[in-house]
Amino acid sequence: MPREQIRLPPRRIHAPFEDAAVAVLGGAAVRGDDDERLRHAYGRSLRDLIRLRACLFERVPDLILYPSSHDQVATLVELAVEHDVCLIPFGGGTNIAGCVEAKGRDDRVVVTLDLAQMNRLLAVDRESCTARFEAGVFGPDLETALAQHGLTLGHQPDSFQFSTLGGWLATRSAGTLSNAYGKIEDMVLSLRVVTPSGTIETRTVPACASGPDINRLLVGSEGVFGVITEAVVRVHPLPQFEDYRLMLFRSFPDGLAALRACQEAGCLPSLARLSDPRETELVFACRHVTPGWKRWLQAPLKAYLRRRGYAAPCAAVIAFEGPARTAATLHREAMRILRRFGAVDLGTGPGNRWRHSRYDLPYLRDYLLDYNLMCDSMETATVWSNLLPLVECVREATRAAATETTGQAGYIGCHLSHFYPTGACVYFLFGAAARPGSSPESAIEQYAAIKARGTAAILAAGGTLTHHHSVGFEHLPWMTVEHSPAALNALRAVKAELDPTNLMNPGSLLPPAEVPLANGCLAKVPVEVLPTGTL
Amino acid sequence: MPREQIRLPPRRIHAPFEDAAVAVLGGAAVRGDDDERLRHAYGRSLRDLIRLRACLFERVPDLILYPSSHDQVATLVELAVEHDVCLIPFGGGTNIAGCVEAKGRDDRVVVTLDLAQMNRLLAVDRESCTARFEAGVFGPDLETALAQHGLTLGHQPDSFQFSTLGGWLATRSAGTLSNAYGKIEDMVLSLRVVTPSGTIETRTVPACASGPDINRLLVGSEGVFGVITEAVVRVHPLPQFEDYRLMLFRSFPDGLAALRACQEAGCLPSLARLSDPRETELVFACRHVTPGWKRWLQAPLKAYLRRRGYAAPCAAVIAFEGPARTAATLHREAMRILRRFGAVDLGTGPGNRWRHSRYDLPYLRDYLLDYNLMCDSMETATVWSNLLPLVECVREATRAAATETTGQAGYIGCHLSHFYPTGACVYFLFGAAARPGSSPESAIEQYAAIKARGTAAILAAGGTLTHHHSVGFEHLPWMTVEHSPAALNALRAVKAELDPTNLMNPGSLLPPAEVPLANGCLAKVPVEVLPTGTL
Repeated sequence: MPREQIRLPPRRIHAPFEDAAVAVLGGAAVRGDDDERLRHAYGRSLRDLIRLRACLFERVPDLILYPSSHDQVATLVELAVEHDVCLIPFGGGTNIAGCVEAKGRDDRVVVTLDLAQMNRLLAVDRESCTARFEAGVFGPDLETALAQHGLTLGHQPDSFQFSTLGGWLATRSAGTLSNAYGKIEDMVLSLRVVTPSGTIETRTVPACASGPDINRLLVGSEGVFGVITEAVVRVHPLPQFEDYRLMLFRSFPDGLAALRACQEAGCLPSLARLSDPRETELVFACRHVTPGWKRWLQAPLKAYLRRRGYAAPCAAVIAFEGPARTAATLHREAMRILRRFGAVDLGTGPGNRWRHSRYDLPYLRDYLLDYNLMCDSMETATVWSNLLPLVECVREATRAAATETTGQAGYIGCHLSHFYPTGACVYFLFGAAARPGSSPESAIEQYAAIKARGTAAILAAGGTLTHHHSVGFEHLPWMTVEHSPAALNALRAVKAELDPTNLMNPGSLLPPAEVPLANGCLAKVPVEVLPTGTL
Repeated sequence: MPREQIRLPPRRIHAPFEDAAVAVLGGAAVRGDDDERLRHAYGRSLRDLIRLRACLFERVPDLILYPSSHDQVATLVELAVEHDVCLIPFGGGTNIAGCVEAKGRDDRVVVTLDLAQMNRLLAVDRESCTARFEAGVFGPDLETALAQHGLTLGHQPDSFQFSTLGGWLATRSAGTLSNAYGKIEDMVLSLRVVTPSGTIETRTVPACASGPDINRLLVGSEGVFGVITEAVVRVHPLPQFEDYRLMLFRSFPDGLAALRACQEAGCLPSLARLSDPRETELVFACRHVTPGWKRWLQAPLKAYLRRRGYAAPCAAVIAFEGPARTAATLHREAMRILRRFGAVDLGTGPGNRWRHSRYDLPYLRDYLLDYNLMCDSMETATVWSNLLPLVECVREATRAAATETTGQAGYIGCHLSHFYPTGACVYFLFGAAARPGSSPESAIEQYAAIKARGTAAILAAGGTLTHHHSVGFEHLPWMTVEHSPAALNALRAVKAELDPTNLMNPGSLLPPAEVPLANGCLAKVPVEVLPTGTL
């Protein structure tokens, strides 16, 4: 649809707040035009893509502010309290759980706080391997700034190019190399967070025991407690050793056992991404076109592998990064173990190709929508012994839901990534064609029904609601399954203390206390807690 | 003092609660005798030792209960709410911050909940390397139970022999091998915690992103939110490789630089404990008597070392534990680096002697009290670049305080232990003779004055209030320096939500909201928040 035909809901104007914001930020950093409102309306979930394509807008931010410093954010939050407007902190806008969306039936003016101007590296402590950043810094800029000091953060989520440190922190993000560098919550030494009840600053120390972990109370708070403005993070010398390669296993259980053996032997790869047979097929189908002479070589290799039991193989990207000598040694040790479990080494060529194209896959989703194909992901984590049962359970539930909803079983594949001593993340990709002639609203309904069944299966099988995609409103109905009532009430108490008038990103993360226990079905949740198009 | 001369304050009796408790637990698990009350009166801080020796009791628990299961604890907490009695969860009673003490001016009956009967290994998942324990299990029992499955938790705090899993969790404990196995908060997959507002159970998953980390909100809560009854923890195969040795560095900065280099090279020892010259002297002075023929060999070695620049050396215990091949490789690599920084290897003999006598040192403290010598510890953590400045600052402040208070500079030494990519824990041992003829009360005052100055120096120098000793009431006055007001208010809100009538371990962890900002001096805190003998 041409830009000029897109109509947004009318803007609500709170003139005293806007005037005050202009006085703080200057006029150029206070934007109410529709281009800005459109750009900040949604994240990047499938639901968001469909709504954007079909111009489905119910609520869109009324104003977008671009603060340039912690102090400006602190002033803006004070003004928001004074004028009773809602604030939505905004990083790169890549969230796929609805974290940056104006939600609910709140009549107040909704203001998006875009931190893109707050992108500075404020301090580096090379000896301690720490760096203080403003929270609005984007992935590539953060790494460029660190590289000038010979350092890296090592956090590369799929959204890396378009997401920010603050967004990673607010949503408990995980990067592809989390085996080596940890999830974002493992990387934080200290935070500055502006809340309506004052600024929280934590001490820049490697560890402490002075009560519950305040950093971990703020990381993952999705903007509902306040605005993360700065963080001191743990960084690492740029890796001297890097080895990315593709390997093949005879089966998913073989690959899983091989990686578990690496873990137990103390040589877990920095990155491991083990695809099931369906995803392996997809990956090979999507790969770059192979030159003729290589194809000529591949045919006998394939025939040979088939004879050896690799008829429906599982591909694994295996990477090691780190200090020259130790990473190389651990890599050698891991290779020895992986081979013992039947891994065929396809070499660094395809490994490096994966590395350099790893951010491409999400684009495919948008392309497929042109063909009425709805593709999305679900992810969870569970312990080693439960990985295969959970995968089976979710796969069956999702297939059944797709068949019932769209008339076809659709596609579902998965990979394991983000490994821990006790388990791993399971990442499902599923796709289904909406029933022919479906309206966008109906397509969203069909998608939501499939995802709801998959999510319910994840929880029933003992997985977590989300390993790194966050809650937003997308996963809100299951928060009462994920957490004990008393735990949710504790978080609500923190919310009420830090944000007594509920102006920080209202509607995200915390289901209203009166919502009954979800039984895993979106339709059982009262309509008013979910935006249009969800049911 | 003979046991029969010890007089405890009279016991307050709440007959309906006691009857109900007997109905739940049976009479043998409900104890009001003075032996039990005495045993649960204090922890094991220096202040506690002095008070025990001098029979200084202000408030002592009125009743001790020994529940045998989660369900019994849940019932007891309900009864406590119903009858408005206070509950103090009790593990091994080794806490040195006052966490298990009946505090404050609360007129309610104080009941200690001793979890010693809840010591079962409930489930092992060998494949996932997880184990579910009841929280009252003691260190040695826990390791014995795991060893039968070829597993270990790897958590060995100095209190290991007499402390429990639940106590470790409640206080964010750290074991000597934390470099390899993490702090206790890193080991938790899930918890069961009984609060007055209901039981919180978290999911047994390796990681998640479903909002703020609930486990980390409960770990370190020191019994003020509820009672930890069970935990699923990450365990490891018993190490195939173990190497403990003692090394000498020319100086503290040399040793620090060497360990930092190991960290950066990816081969940080599983355990490193680098003593400063003063502590090194102490350690060598305390060592087992050397047979004559060895002494004969030592003299020329010492002379040689002195000539080579080791006149005032720093001792370091360096240990590697883990899977056979990788741990051995990392050990070799570390040895290469340590030697580059001038480490002299005294071999595994003294390393293993340290290992086998490592739990002995705290006993010395008790012995020295017979000679009017007050010895205690302070600990903190800070980033690498701040370690030496902080040590200097705290050493000077403590010396000055000791001189002013007792007339002599006393002893202060320290070691670094518990290393992180970004820094380490600093553990100070200090000792001073109370002024001749001091009463026990006056001795406590002198001790408290010295520790207060040392603690203030730690915080002023950018360290954390405590790396693994917890808060209790001992560190309460500094919580307002350690944390932002809004952060403390968030914790208070959680407390009010989970324990609305403040019956869980009242007086610990959270300073009352009306206490003004501490300036680092105990005397500035209103008398009523601290027990007698503190000021």
